[in-house]
Amino acid sequence: MNLNGFYSIILLLLFSITGMAKRQVNVLDFGVTSEIQDCTPGIIKSLQACKDGNDVELIFPKGVYNFYHDFGVDKYCFISNNDEGLKRVVFLLEKMKNFTINGQGSSFIFHGFINPFVINNSSNVVFKNFSIDFTRSFHSEATILAQNSDGLDIEIPKDYPYMINNGILVFIDEELNNRVVTSLSPENIYPYGILLEFDSKKHETASMARDYFVQNSPLPAISLGDRKVRIFHKTLKGTPGNTLVFNPSNRNYPGFAVSDCKDIRFENVTIFHAGGMGIVAQQTHNIAVVSCKITPSGNRAISTTADATHFANCTGKIELAGCLFQNQMDDATNIHGIYVQIAKKIAPDEVIVQLKHYQQLGFDFLKPETVIELVQSKSLITKGTSKIISSKRLNKDLTVVKLSKDLPNDINVGDVIADISELPFVHIHDNIIGKNRARGMLLNCKGKTIVENNTFHSAGAAIMFEGDAYYWFEQGGVSDCTIQNNIFDNCMFGVWGEAVLDVKAGIKLQRDVSRYNRNIKIINNTFRVFDDALLLQTYCVDGLIWKDNKIEKNNEYPTIRNNKSLFKVENSDNIKIEQ
Amino acid sequence: MNLNGFYSIILLLLFSITGMAKRQVNVLDFGVTSEIQDCTPGIIKSLQACKDGNDVELIFPKGVYNFYHDFGVDKYCFISNNDEGLKRVVFLLEKMKNFTINGQGSSFIFHGFINPFVINNSSNVVFKNFSIDFTRSFHSEATILAQNSDGLDIEIPKDYPYMINNGILVFIDEELNNRVVTSLSPENIYPYGILLEFDSKKHETASMARDYFVQNSPLPAISLGDRKVRIFHKTLKGTPGNTLVFNPSNRNYPGFAVSDCKDIRFENVTIFHAGGMGIVAQQTHNIAVVSCKITPSGNRAISTTADATHFANCTGKIELAGCLFQNQMDDATNIHGIYVQIAKKIAPDEVIVQLKHYQQLGFDFLKPETVIELVQSKSLITKGTSKIISSKRLNKDLTVVKLSKDLPNDINVGDVIADISELPFVHIHDNIIGKNRARGMLLNCKGKTIVENNTFHSAGAAIMFEGDAYYWFEQGGVSDCTIQNNIFDNCMFGVWGEAVLDVKAGIKLQRDVSRYNRNIKIINNTFRVFDDALLLQTYCVDGLIWKDNKIEKNNEYPTIRNNKSLFKVENSDNIKIEQ
Repeated sequence: MNLNGFYSIILLLLFSITGMAKRQVNVLDFGVTSEIQDCTPGIIKSLQACKDGNDVELIFPKGVYNFYHDFGVDKYCFISNNDEGLKRVVFLLEKMKNFTINGQGSSFIFHGFINPFVINNSSNVVFKNFSIDFTRSFHSEATILAQNSDGLDIEIPKDYPYMINNGILVFIDEELNNRVVTSLSPENIYPYGILLEFDSKKHETASMARDYFVQNSPLPAISLGDRKVRIFHKTLKGTPGNTLVFNPSNRNYPGFAVSDCKDIRFENVTIFHAGGMGIVAQQTHNIAVVSCKITPSGNRAISTTADATHFANCTGKIELAGCLFQNQMDDATNIHGIYVQIAKKIAPDEVIVQLKHYQQLGFDFLKPETVIELVQSKSLITKGTSKIISSKRLNKDLTVVKLSKDLPNDINVGDVIADISELPFVHIHDNIIGKNRARGMLLNCKGKTIVENNTFHSAGAAIMFEGDAYYWFEQGGVSDCTIQNNIFDNCMFGVWGEAVLDVKAGIKLQRDVSRYNRNIKIINNTFRVFDDALLLQTYCVDGLIWKDNKIEKNNEYPTIRNNKSLFKVENSDNIKIEQ
Repeated sequence: MNLNGFYSIILLLLFSITGMAKRQVNVLDFGVTSEIQDCTPGIIKSLQACKDGNDVELIFPKGVYNFYHDFGVDKYCFISNNDEGLKRVVFLLEKMKNFTINGQGSSFIFHGFINPFVINNSSNVVFKNFSIDFTRSFHSEATILAQNSDGLDIEIPKDYPYMINNGILVFIDEELNNRVVTSLSPENIYPYGILLEFDSKKHETASMARDYFVQNSPLPAISLGDRKVRIFHKTLKGTPGNTLVFNPSNRNYPGFAVSDCKDIRFENVTIFHAGGMGIVAQQTHNIAVVSCKITPSGNRAISTTADATHFANCTGKIELAGCLFQNQMDDATNIHGIYVQIAKKIAPDEVIVQLKHYQQLGFDFLKPETVIELVQSKSLITKGTSKIISSKRLNKDLTVVKLSKDLPNDINVGDVIADISELPFVHIHDNIIGKNRARGMLLNCKGKTIVENNTFHSAGAAIMFEGDAYYWFEQGGVSDCTIQNNIFDNCMFGVWGEAVLDVKAGIKLQRDVSRYNRNIKIINNTFRVFDDALLLQTYCVDGLIWKDNKIEKNNEYPTIRNNKSLFKVENSDNIKIEQ
């Protein structure tokens, strides 16, 4: 080899390592600037240009870019744990390879009913150095002025336009009024289905605040003048000075919806808001969320209207590292599989399976060669494994599947099937999580799971082990889970859970023999606590070590719970608690 | 030619004429019987079998056949003047040719949120000899018990399950409760957006009853026991004993949605109910609805929740003959084109056009070679014609079109474009129309239109000439319309119109020169009237003959209107009224 050849190889190696080999495409060349009103058409053109090549980095000069609904692309999406539908997408990435979007510190501002990012069938895609936000959030907020016998008096800031229509409180967006509307068009409505009180000083859910579900029953209201409104709801409680959040029940507008991809990386991306989850990935192999933030902008009480991140039937490595996940209206993450229910037995080796939860419909994962487990729905005991020989989707609910062998005798209609072909390795480390509704993390992954060096300040359980086959139909059950060197900082000031580390699998029968979660190590963590809430609750666990954990008491919150023991263990084997 | 050859030709001719040449497929062979619970899977199989051949008649032994949601086929549909969406369809006919469905007198009963018939890209299809109905109607009804200062006391029959949820009246279907629901799932809700009172004795809309639009603002309510409910609405009025209809604002479930077809015939088909229009056809060439009925089943006050029939951008011959259209919640028919608005001028001969009404989105009609007219939106004056050279759809709202020549100088952004490539011949004869909300017929077809030998008993105008470019964006303007030998039997007992024959085009400017409707002949009709409501109102009409019409007075309704003249003519030319 001559010297030139040697240098070439060195250069190539350097490029491979640094990614500098990528051809750069600048959005400026497509008319996308901070000055123009709607950058959507230019983005669509620039993405088309990127698609023509390979190894492309799409760069944004640092700035503020605005995106409207009008010129987006239509795409029907089934997005697990969010709402399916025909989405109007700005960044629709399909079959992209070796592609980076580098915002270089830019802000992407979205206006109206629009989906920022949908990524399908792509590989080696990096998102970095930008933030996303919406001018009008999908939720609304109000300041609580007074509690009275019929409900609450509230004051609604100008950021949340509303009207009282036929005596009912309806949130709208005045910016959208240029569209054709019939009476009150659905296009202009920001519906709400969940009410929740936030502590305005602590910027977190109010202590022990509970959800009020008002889906399909919006609130009767009268105007008190000056954006002050009396809302009527017999059981609704609130503390004057606190914030009442009106959250949508739908999850139509997740920030990033990733499906059937490989090697996806988020780096230094901030999601101030999304009308659904922040980042949701399904059937994706290797995904990393590194140095990202999900946190509200301005004075808003909440960030995303659902989970910060969420992973369904993902494989490879799932990494959450160095992130801030706060004030979202649901968990910081949930990593799980999906159960389909056996709806009908056609033959000993052939069944019709049904997706049951309405936010899982269309989830298409039972392909030939998929290795599956067959699970009793009420005990969550796996009764056998098999392989898919063929499958035929009838519609978004039902699929006919032929198995490599007959169903076990003790698997019947009503029992469930899940994919176990490849289990991911989950590594969650160095994150700060808290101030959000619900739990910190739901760990429902059968693969190796390590949770370390995180700080949790969750209103509910910090870590919950879920999974059920009757409501959410999320496959859970860890087999090798290590929770170490974390700080659990005054968790459990809310209603969502019974212990800081909480097993809540949906096991209705045979708890004496079902062992759904296994091999959990809880080592060297610090628990900062303000009362005697349970630190650990388990049932149907086989193998748990509690060792070298510190407990530090403080009085930052009033006492809520007063347990004699901080540990509650039932129907479990091989539990070692060393205090 | 020998004798055999001769007979063969005779036989062939006979078969061609009678249709007997069709191969018969019996649904019985696919397990479809009156006895089984859900005939949907069998129907899907039988349609597949029919598709394999040509010239097929699918026959049903006379019986009652039930269809559920579960096994239907998913299809995303844009259906003009109804709601777009992913439909769950039982009879999905795509690319069918020379196909007949013969119910032989059968009843097809649908359960839940399901679309009975969707027909795309098919030709020579006949539907005959069956009825369709739904067990749980998409609207709900109640008997008015009393009027009070806050609203109405009503009694809700068992046919319309409901609950009072957080103090709000919500209609549901108890049959659907086997599905997974989160709190109150949208899957189980029958929403209402329009309230309307019906006269329980006359079985028609109550005299001068008006619509109450409560979309997005469902009614506060309290239970009074025994399915009696007090609903709160300050301006709502009603007469005890009458029926209050809670109609949905959405039109998700039309009975038959026909798109891009040719030679479609309905014969002896009864539509007792649909959650949208009864029959809606778009971009279809030759369509006949003959000896059909749209009428409520049982004690229901209404049949379809929207128009009985509706035709958008159809060509060839449109025939409605010998039908009964009654009690639908909107017009018996509306035959119109679609205006798209010029949203942006890209070049002198290139524009971006926008579909404006939300129930027209996705209507895809500007193809190369389409001849168009360019119309000023506020005057509805056609300023020129052109031809589409190329078009590119950006999304369901926007399309870029290149024209064969530059835009006229007086056509600008905000003005509209419609297809005039081929105008249909409309023949509406021997029908009985009435007892429904709104008007009888909207005649908005530029082709030859003959309306004869019909009996109208419509609450509003019997015949209305509409068309506008600011709200509905429906292209109208007749050029040769004959209305003869009809009986107009006590129309105008409701609020929807100002004259029995009413011009109501949306002309905002230049009424002195705009002549949108032309050459209307009104000859030899009988007008049975109970008061001095206008018989004819025109503006912007050029050419109208009123001749040999009889007026018969009766006192079947109380006097509502008291005009000095029964004719109101403004801004029109060549109007000859011979009384």
